Amino acid sequence: MAFEQTLLDEDFSNIGQKLYAFAELMYPVCRSITGQGVRDTLEMVREKIPLTINQVPTGTQVFDWEVPREWNIKDAYIKNSKGEKVVDFKNNNLHIVSYSTPIDVTMTLSELKKHLHTIEKQPDCIPYRTSYYSESWGFCLSYNQFKTLPEDDYQVFIDSSLEEGVLNYGEYYIAGESKEEILFYTHICHPSLCNDNLSGISTVTYLAKILTEQDLHFSYRFIFAPGTIGAISWLSLNEQVLPNIKHGLIVALVGDSGKLNYKRNRNLSSEIDRVVCKALEDGNKEFEILEFSPYGYDERQFCSPGINLDVGRLTRTPNNSYPEYHTSADNLDFIKAEKLAESLQAILQIVNILENNKIYINVSPQCEPQLGKRGLYDKTGGKQGVEQNAFAMLWILNQSDGEHSLLDIAIRSGLRFETISNASKSLINCGLLKLVNKA
Amino acid sequence: MAFEQTLLDEDFSNIGQKLYAFAELMYPVCRSITGQGVRDTLEMVREKIPLTINQVPTGTQVFDWEVPREWNIKDAYIKNSKGEKVVDFKNNNLHIVSYSTPIDVTMTLSELKKHLHTIEKQPDCIPYRTSYYSESWGFCLSYNQFKTLPEDDYQVFIDSSLEEGVLNYGEYYIAGESKEEILFYTHICHPSLCNDNLSGISTVTYLAKILTEQDLHFSYRFIFAPGTIGAISWLSLNEQVLPNIKHGLIVALVGDSGKLNYKRNRNLSSEIDRVVCKALEDGNKEFEILEFSPYGYDERQFCSPGINLDVGRLTRTPNNSYPEYHTSADNLDFIKAEKLAESLQAILQIVNILENNKIYINVSPQCEPQLGKRGLYDKTGGKQGVEQNAFAMLWILNQSDGEHSLLDIAIRSGLRFETISNASKSLINCGLLKLVNKA
Amino acid sequence: MAFEQTLLDEDFSNIGQKLYAFAELMYPVCRSITGQGVRDTLEMVREKIPLTINQVPTGTQVFDWEVPREWNIKDAYIKNSKGEKVVDFKNNNLHIVSYSTPIDVTMTLSELKKHLHTIEKQPDCIPYRTSYYSESWGFCLSYNQFKTLPEDDYQVFIDSSLEEGVLNYGEYYIAGESKEEILFYTHICHPSLCNDNLSGISTVTYLAKILTEQDLHFSYRFIFAPGTIGAISWLSLNEQVLPNIKHGLIVALVGDSGKLNYKRNRNLSSEIDRVVCKALEDGNKEFEILEFSPYGYDERQFCSPGINLDVGRLTRTPNNSYPEYHTSADNLDFIKAEKLAESLQAILQIVNILENNKIYINVSPQCEPQLGKRGLYDKTGGKQGVEQNAFAMLWILNQSDGEHSLLDIAIRSGLRFETISNASKSLINCGLLKLVNKA
Repeated sequence: MAFEQTLLDEDFSNIGQKLYAFAELMYPVCRSITGQGVRDTLEMVREKIPLTINQVPTGTQVFDWEVPREWNIKDAYIKNSKGEKVVDFKNNNLHIVSYSTPIDVTMTLSELKKHLHTIEKQPDCIPYRTSYYSESWGFCLSYNQFKTLPEDDYQVFIDSSLEEGVLNYGEYYIAGESKEEILFYTHICHPSLCNDNLSGISTVTYLAKILTEQDLHFSYRFIFAPGTIGAISWLSLNEQVLPNIKHGLIVALVGDSGKLNYKRNRNLSSEIDRVVCKALEDGNKEFEILEFSPYGYDERQFCSPGINLDVGRLTRTPNNSYPEYHTSADNLDFIKAEKLAESLQAILQIVNILENNKIYINVSPQCEPQLGKRGLYDKTGGKQGVEQNAFAMLWILNQSDGEHSLLDIAIRSGLRFETISNASKSLINCGLLKLVNKA
Repeated sequence: MAFEQTLLDEDFSNIGQKLYAFAELMYPVCRSITGQGVRDTLEMVREKIPLTINQVPTGTQVFDWEVPREWNIKDAYIKNSKGEKVVDFKNNNLHIVSYSTPIDVTMTLSELKKHLHTIEKQPDCIPYRTSYYSESWGFCLSYNQFKTLPEDDYQVFIDSSLEEGVLNYGEYYIAGESKEEILFYTHICHPSLCNDNLSGISTVTYLAKILTEQDLHFSYRFIFAPGTIGAISWLSLNEQVLPNIKHGLIVALVGDSGKLNYKRNRNLSSEIDRVVCKALEDGNKEFEILEFSPYGYDERQFCSPGINLDVGRLTRTPNNSYPEYHTSADNLDFIKAEKLAESLQAILQIVNILENNKIYINVSPQCEPQLGKRGLYDKTGGKQGVEQNAFAMLWILNQSDGEHSLLDIAIRSGLRFETISNASKSLINCGLLKLVNKA
Repeated sequence: MAFEQTLLDEDFSNIGQKLYAFAELMYPVCRSITGQGVRDTLEMVREKIPLTINQVPTGTQVFDWEVPREWNIKDAYIKNSKGEKVVDFKNNNLHIVSYSTPIDVTMTLSELKKHLHTIEKQPDCIPYRTSYYSESWGFCLSYNQFKTLPEDDYQVFIDSSLEEGVLNYGEYYIAGESKEEILFYTHICHPSLCNDNLSGISTVTYLAKILTEQDLHFSYRFIFAPGTIGAISWLSLNEQVLPNIKHGLIVALVGDSGKLNYKRNRNLSSEIDRVVCKALEDGNKEFEILEFSPYGYDERQFCSPGINLDVGRLTRTPNNSYPEYHTSADNLDFIKAEKLAESLQAILQIVNILENNKIYINVSPQCEPQLGKRGLYDKTGGKQGVEQNAFAMLWILNQSDGEHSLLDIAIRSGLRFETISNASKSLINCGLLKLVNKA
């Protein structure tokens, strides 16, 4: 039995709560591109879906990059001369620059300041900073706190390690009828930041969970990996899989209150762009289509010229476009259960179109077939207009010359994909349409 | 001698009267998709042009359809218990649902109501209803009358017949120089309704009459047939003719006060669309271009995927878009002589472009030829601008590289087709242009 | 060393003065399509650049045209019966219709008026008129003077000659690395008119002077020739050169205060159009793009179907669009040093794009290359956004698949060509880009 649109009618206020609760569960973990926090997070995902957790050793060459050493951290703080912790990693893991090297020294304020990061324009927020590929250490704190730090001798303590180890990522594959596959990718390397990207991890996890129970045409692959180096590692180690990937979607930043944004693919006329645009249009909620650009999230890698997969990106408010981005304000208040649910619903509608889009041929193509004698047309003539289902049947019959898919027909007619898809069923049942191809 | 644009200068207030008078003459006849009313109407057309009247026997298989039995009606009424005719077919043939079966019974109001059709929102109008393919009977009446009908025993009387017979259609062919042909199609199955479609019958009849007297490049075929089943019958019985049809136009609903509407062809870049758009643009009257859709009039059949002819549709206010549509308000007051004339004029301008559109080659293509020495260019230089005829000549010379037709040039230059066509004559006369092809 | 963008930073208020001064120097000369005035003007240009001055004998057949006799004029006036010169060529060379035949007769006012040209709507202006191909004579004067001429016997005296001679044009060629060439063409046939076209002569002269000192990829050809007959002569005599011409630009009317106007090429998707549009866009000044039409300046000849070169036209306010056009009001007050400089600057930006537009291939196309380890990317991650140079590098790496030029990338990214061009240098330096082709 094919993927059922009725799924879309599930109680989404309920699923919103589940999506939110999962983000809440993952929130305290200190993630980075490697280390225990990543493994802990992947384990949490594995409790919901049968995830495979893979590891790539430090030093592995992945295209132009090398897998870095594994970073772990136990504790970090700045103490003043009275022995008070003025900045404490245990209060908020954003306080530490990710990949900070271990240190235990005492220094003056002016020495210390070279290692402090703040955002003057958002004086209450702790910024999120990383230094993956340049050995150094640093602390992040609110500008309001920063400016009140008195001259003093400060003890700086970081109990971290940077050692040979592994980079982890999670992968889950659902085999469908076809080995052609749809890829969903979300990054997992951010510490206590909610929209970016616990929203993505939670949404993709529940998407995978829902699709597990379905009969599917396509195969589906879900990747949970650190940003940039994770995507590069996966692509480098899975080149044999790439020819199977028909379309893909980067899912990230899908829990805030903004409208959905779809960022188009590098390729100017890719099917995934048409599918997502139609799904969002049919969703009857405000949305925006962004042109492709090579800056953003992991579409950067999937859309590089030597990979060049048809992978778009679904977010709500895009990175860099909201002040809470990469600060402590991207917290559990910033994401909404309802918005997570709407994002998942939109993705299910995308899957619905992908699964059910087919090319049929009208087997009675000369003039209209007589729908009335098949019980498909109003017997009383002369009335104003035609009801929508009959109109959809006329469109399908008119366009099903073997060249146009149901999606093509939905787009040209301006009707919802679901309306076209439902109308096609009546025509298939009475033998007027014959399947030519899965689109 | 080629088709002359001067035709377009004929006294069109006069032709408007003729078009209107012909509609008036046909108005009282009770037409349906078959029967005596159709034959009477075709005879009226035959008095103006040498029409061939064809018949297709009941039961003939035409693609997915079968020609239905012939329906004729002599009388029909509803009498109250006092013997008064409260609804009488002889007052208005819309009172009877077309294809009503014969009956003579007495029944209560509540029984009767199951067979009564009204439009509550237009309480003064009698609706037009049909039941061609489902045996039944019914009466149509205004909602105002309907709601005052008292409880009573009503005699229902319909003196109709539904018997083996024929479906009729009329056809007229003018042979031009080329066997490539232009098709004009209008439906003839509506009873006392003026815009839909006495306006079409009258306009196409006079168009045919005017073209009869011309030397024409293309051959022209005019079909007067019932809607849907008539078009399907004609197409089914004339498959050998279809390859000759280069362009076509459904003409219907061309007498109301609305602006002209052209509905595009199924094929996205068909010549007929460009020709009609340019003709309407040159006409300097408001108009609208509608996208193709598979609902409407007989373009539904001509544009079905297995027929797929380049056939557009010219109407004024489209079907379903005005309240008078398919009601007794579509009467002789609803159509205007002046609008009928304007519609005919627009069609003649379409024919003008079709007939006179040609591809020439500039035989002096390197730089501009010296128009001054041929008396075609102002001898005094330095003035502001250039007069329109010289500008048109420059456009023609520039674009006539064997790839662009006069229509292409008129569209790119933004000049009227007539301006380009006239300017081409001077260039042909002095030998600067050579004919490459009829477009 | 390649063409340097830094040229664009030259002191352009200074070059504006030079451009203006050169126009001022040429202003008094009485030019026409042939004669001493043309030679004098070409000599003035030769003092700045090593111009070749060519001559085409009277009677030479050039495509559909014939080189006319050479016209020279020494004096011309109209004297009233008191012996006062009421119109005197020596006051303003616009007073004489160009190519007026010699005459010395006395006539009445009403006889004289047949030979007088005025513009009633601009009563203070002397119009500019010519009669190259129709032997006649005439005077031009302001309408205000014209209407006060009393009845009288007037002596009409024109000391001109129309004899076998030559048509002159100037040509200058700079050989670049490639024999593919860029053509700049300006007309030189107008007498004391500044915008049309001393502005063009001056600008193209200084352009040629600047490019002389550069190492250039393309070869450059500069033609200074009379309008229409000069362009036709040059094209007719240089057919062997035409295959080398890759792009061209007519430069004319570039000194007035209006915004720059670029008139597109006859060919709908020519590279020169894209280059000029991007250069003007990057210039951050208001501009307008005009569709091609076969009326205007010498693009008429270069874009004729048998020549069909990719030659656009750069003007400020186009011919026919300002009242001063072809009148004595197109004088030294009408053109501005600053606007001449801006026009030259725009052309240099066009040359800059032409010279520096190349197609590279990203040699590390699978995922992004690691820019950080090459010192090209901010080492601290997590910040909002990316700085422009890094963004430009990402665009170049993403699009450099061998199909897209730097111009393509600048257009798609919306970044300035210069930003893209500069960013490409860092990528070339670190070996990430390899040259595929000069675009």
